[in-house]
Amino acid sequence: MIKVGVVGGTGYTGVELLRLLCCHAEAEVVTITSRGDAGTAVADMFPSLRGRVDLDFVAPADADLERCDVVFFATPNGIAMQQAAGLVAAGVRVIDLAADFRIRDVALWEKWYGMQHAAPDLVAEAVYGLPELNREAIRGARLVANPGCYPTAVQLGFLPLIEAGVIDPSALIADAASGASGAGRKAEVRTLLAEASDSFQAYGASGHRHLPEISQGLSGMAGARVGLTFVPHLLPMVRGIHATLYGRITREADFQALFEQRFADEPFVDVMPPGRHPETRSVRASNLCRIAIHRPQDGDVVVVLAVIDNLVKGAAGQAVQNMNIMFGLDEREGLDGVPVSP
Amino acid sequence: MIKVGVVGGTGYTGVELLRLLCCHAEAEVVTITSRGDAGTAVADMFPSLRGRVDLDFVAPADADLERCDVVFFATPNGIAMQQAAGLVAAGVRVIDLAADFRIRDVALWEKWYGMQHAAPDLVAEAVYGLPELNREAIRGARLVANPGCYPTAVQLGFLPLIEAGVIDPSALIADAASGASGAGRKAEVRTLLAEASDSFQAYGASGHRHLPEISQGLSGMAGARVGLTFVPHLLPMVRGIHATLYGRITREADFQALFEQRFADEPFVDVMPPGRHPETRSVRASNLCRIAIHRPQDGDVVVVLAVIDNLVKGAAGQAVQNMNIMFGLDEREGLDGVPVSP
Amino acid sequence: MIKVGVVGGTGYTGVELLRLLCCHAEAEVVTITSRGDAGTAVADMFPSLRGRVDLDFVAPADADLERCDVVFFATPNGIAMQQAAGLVAAGVRVIDLAADFRIRDVALWEKWYGMQHAAPDLVAEAVYGLPELNREAIRGARLVANPGCYPTAVQLGFLPLIEAGVIDPSALIADAASGASGAGRKAEVRTLLAEASDSFQAYGASGHRHLPEISQGLSGMAGARVGLTFVPHLLPMVRGIHATLYGRITREADFQALFEQRFADEPFVDVMPPGRHPETRSVRASNLCRIAIHRPQDGDVVVVLAVIDNLVKGAAGQAVQNMNIMFGLDEREGLDGVPVSP
Amino acid sequence: MIKVGVVGGTGYTGVELLRLLCCHAEAEVVTITSRGDAGTAVADMFPSLRGRVDLDFVAPADADLERCDVVFFATPNGIAMQQAAGLVAAGVRVIDLAADFRIRDVALWEKWYGMQHAAPDLVAEAVYGLPELNREAIRGARLVANPGCYPTAVQLGFLPLIEAGVIDPSALIADAASGASGAGRKAEVRTLLAEASDSFQAYGASGHRHLPEISQGLSGMAGARVGLTFVPHLLPMVRGIHATLYGRITREADFQALFEQRFADEPFVDVMPPGRHPETRSVRASNLCRIAIHRPQDGDVVVVLAVIDNLVKGAAGQAVQNMNIMFGLDEREGLDGVPVSP
Repeated sequence: MIKVGVVGGTGYTGVELLRLLCCHAEAEVVTITSRGDAGTAVADMFPSLRGRVDLDFVAPADADLERCDVVFFATPNGIAMQQAAGLVAAGVRVIDLAADFRIRDVALWEKWYGMQHAAPDLVAEAVYGLPELNREAIRGARLVANPGCYPTAVQLGFLPLIEAGVIDPSALIADAASGASGAGRKAEVRTLLAEASDSFQAYGASGHRHLPEISQGLSGMAGARVGLTFVPHLLPMVRGIHATLYGRITREADFQALFEQRFADEPFVDVMPPGRHPETRSVRASNLCRIAIHRPQDGDVVVVLAVIDNLVKGAAGQAVQNMNIMFGLDEREGLDGVPVSP
Repeated sequence: MIKVGVVGGTGYTGVELLRLLCCHAEAEVVTITSRGDAGTAVADMFPSLRGRVDLDFVAPADADLERCDVVFFATPNGIAMQQAAGLVAAGVRVIDLAADFRIRDVALWEKWYGMQHAAPDLVAEAVYGLPELNREAIRGARLVANPGCYPTAVQLGFLPLIEAGVIDPSALIADAASGASGAGRKAEVRTLLAEASDSFQAYGASGHRHLPEISQGLSGMAGARVGLTFVPHLLPMVRGIHATLYGRITREADFQALFEQRFADEPFVDVMPPGRHPETRSVRASNLCRIAIHRPQDGDVVVVLAVIDNLVKGAAGQAVQNMNIMFGLDEREGLDGVPVSP
Repeated sequence: MIKVGVVGGTGYTGVELLRLLCCHAEAEVVTITSRGDAGTAVADMFPSLRGRVDLDFVAPADADLERCDVVFFATPNGIAMQQAAGLVAAGVRVIDLAADFRIRDVALWEKWYGMQHAAPDLVAEAVYGLPELNREAIRGARLVANPGCYPTAVQLGFLPLIEAGVIDPSALIADAASGASGAGRKAEVRTLLAEASDSFQAYGASGHRHLPEISQGLSGMAGARVGLTFVPHLLPMVRGIHATLYGRITREADFQALFEQRFADEPFVDVMPPGRHPETRSVRASNLCRIAIHRPQDGDVVVVLAVIDNLVKGAAGQAVQNMNIMFGLDEREGLDGVPVSP
Repeated sequence: MIKVGVVGGTGYTGVELLRLLCCHAEAEVVTITSRGDAGTAVADMFPSLRGRVDLDFVAPADADLERCDVVFFATPNGIAMQQAAGLVAAGVRVIDLAADFRIRDVALWEKWYGMQHAAPDLVAEAVYGLPELNREAIRGARLVANPGCYPTAVQLGFLPLIEAGVIDPSALIADAASGASGAGRKAEVRTLLAEASDSFQAYGASGHRHLPEISQGLSGMAGARVGLTFVPHLLPMVRGIHATLYGRITREADFQALFEQRFADEPFVDVMPPGRHPETRSVRASNLCRIAIHRPQDGDVVVVLAVIDNLVKGAAGQAVQNMNIMFGLDEREGLDGVPVSP
């Protein structure tokens, strides 16, 4: 049994990790920390876990994380970078669900995240945990930077087109929308039900923290710096990310076949038949990414539709997938739940 | 492997059966019928099942249900009563998720359901499939009448109080509310999103088909005819039933202990600690019923709050639980998914 | 033109007052205060008011409320009781949308609201602003205690039955549900969209602050202390209150006629025809209360269904109605908007 | 008083017309037709109109529409084209809320709408009722083609940019999303609450009927055929359209000023300050279009965010605005309701 520690378990990615790991045959959560709620039973805060999780939250100082085989950081940005080095040195593998190790350019990271990086040396070692792109590197990684939710959907959707060089990499547009759980479980006026329900709006249109992460990823695929416009929106619903991606065609190709071939062996990417429009609910509570490809009016624009559950493939599920890869397990272990729909 | 047939798989209880049975280690769906959609791939109609269910819907005439060990009817009312006798005679066990065999008084059934019963003799043999009440009878049953969604929540909530004889059985009030999936997957104006979202209303206040079913069950527990007022409401959400039950106390008791003892060995009933209010989402996509007990102002009324997922414990999950009991399996098999929350 | 001041305008009742008063022909908001947001333009905080409200929030100390003809307190509980005496002494009429003056028994108020009352003498003078019950007293009032949202719906629904003495006043049950705007515009985890959407739960089942207010009102109607069980629920939607009321019939009557007669001249109470079930959306954004009466199975229980918009008839609209009455205007002025449905 | 007839009043645009016209000082609905519901009281079908609308639906044959000054067609596509000629000939002015007269190229219309046009000659006479573009022509029009919902938002959002010639007209992208009321009030599985709530998806990505309407409008502004990619999405909410528009900058300009100047005198277009993101709820139930302009990362793409209420500025409200213009009234008459938010 892999001994798992979770740091910062009171947010949505933390509770989702617990939900998934409950059904994992080869991993067991042995400790879960919380600065503010130490002593509280996990199942008291999250009644959905009653009868399934018997742990109490423990103070970070009491957690003894070094006895774990792997530690997940489900913390706000800026926490993992302070603790990862010690754990890695102690032989504990680390998967950070926050953004601390996602951006290779430390100065760029510091600009977007508004703080000084505490472990710039570790950034170079960290492996960006998008298995469809980086599976081999993940296998041996000591430290995995789990991708953001939007970056997962947008990168998977553009990947086959950019790798094949069939669209103009300087004019990419990613219009994306997320359920409110993407904003996390912190008290804020703007994500109150009475504010965000029955309404829709863009946010961060002039610049969102996921922009440099996506740009870095797409630029890596393209072998050159891409030009990306990324506009996120807040959906009046709980879970799900939908990305609508627009690329200007520069070379003719069978786009459908391109996607089918690129993802043929991927356990969690489903390329839908031509003409379909994936719904976010079709992946709800699962680690799947479903993708459909359109070419409106046979024109010069290709439109890719990609959906994920932001808390699963966009966070906790991908983290478990990464753990499975790092420990040589079946990549699907603990992630075979069927999407919950309706 | 238990060979399972599903009749009428294009509704929500059908697709939920498929979702649950995908993860069942000892049962396999071998055929699924649809009158209107024969020839269509199940996964084309329900994209959430892509990659998990490879069956096509078959016409009822082509289904060869007699090769199955068990057949679930996920049909409108009035279908199972026509086919159950033949299947039972052929040694196939039958679980009807519709109402055909729920009411022992055939005349009463005919009044509420507006049709003549096609198999009145079978009604007497049918076992009402509420395991918490009828587990032993279910074990040997050839034909199980799977309870309705409201009846499951209301009966489980009243059960310990009525069995213990501590409330007035002539003045029971059940105020309940259901998500819109309870109305089924048929095109109707009243359950359109634009009609039912961001709104709330009662319906059937003067009489709802689940009233005689609940009354029959509670009367059985009480050993005498109960007086019940039942008002259902339509919630602006997808899944979940919440029942708020009011009983007039006739004998002092430790109500909390009463519930904890009655359900101590039940795998799917969770009696919450005093003071809690179960949320429907805390059981979403699971077979659980969570219950809390209140006694407002230490007065003479006991209030029971009970929640279930209408599609799981209120339909498909309970049907699988019944199948597990009938075939001597672990009652939890295929039903150990953790509730999906948020 | 009536000069209106609003104290505490950054919550939902404040913005709703502004929305309604924009269209009022004989009243004008001249000042609006906020402790935290002084200097902010109202329309910057509430974009729905862009182009319609040109005021900035002012600090309470700078508001010069004494120049107003009437001041609305749209504040948390405990503010109006500190300022009302001075305003009333200065000849300004006061309408408090919070709970400070709703409960005549000061000790009881202090118990439920957990603070000492700052103006117990004023409590006796305050008029409870439910026009359907107290219209004459409101006309001359210097200080009106605007009813709570649940109390409005529950009292209007029980009123004809209790006044006529046809139900048992010792066994009243009020099962009610509110949209999330009823919890106000403050950052809290429990009313985040990701927490409260697609879910339903009771709260305060053992005791809610609106219980003593409702009990006081119903007891006044009955001429004796009533016995009331009140269970509120949180709906996954923005606006609307639905009350389902249960009374045990003690004397035969034509219940439908009772309601129609009692409310025949009320501009904002709509008694629906027999058999109907009012939807909350049918009163959305309006000052209406719609009511339907059922007698299930011709038994001994009468069920009343009552809906209001919690922010209008349950708060700001009723406050404007009270102002209209106090100033001798047409009671409908500013309140003739048609409900917004769908 | 302008005598108004409404043909086909049982859908959402019909009921919204009635809601708005209830508060119109100079117009009165004298008749409203329905093929299927003749004889039914309008207020029985739409309880939100109880006490405000006393009409019954009448059969089309009995409606005597020629006595009206203006007739609104709130019908499915293909009805107005059969009746408009007779009404116009009789001196009745016609406003068609359906698509029959929106596309000048009759062959193109027939291709997209899949039927033969019954009145091709009238198409040439019809005025496209987007007041911000066509106000003068609308004044004298006998027949107005009221724009579609998406076309209203998309055209208003692109208008200043295209008129000023500052973006590449061959590479326009319009990513838009609509609440479910946009799909109309007809029973369909895909817009059931249980299907469309808590989910999000694109539809018609390969081609949607509003594409040729938008293209025609934008091409008119540009003076040349534009290249447009338009992808609509279905939002899990009732009302509102949000358009996110992407244009490639070809000439530097002060984009904010461009919009402010172009719409300076428009009563229903609100250009928000830089940095804002309009929410659909900020225009709910109103005739407003709110627009914000972004230039992400100071790059070569301009992003316009535009929101309307699909049933008001996207349908019934714009139709009333057109009527006001046609009859020389204040353009705001009947349309001064403040948006309902939250």
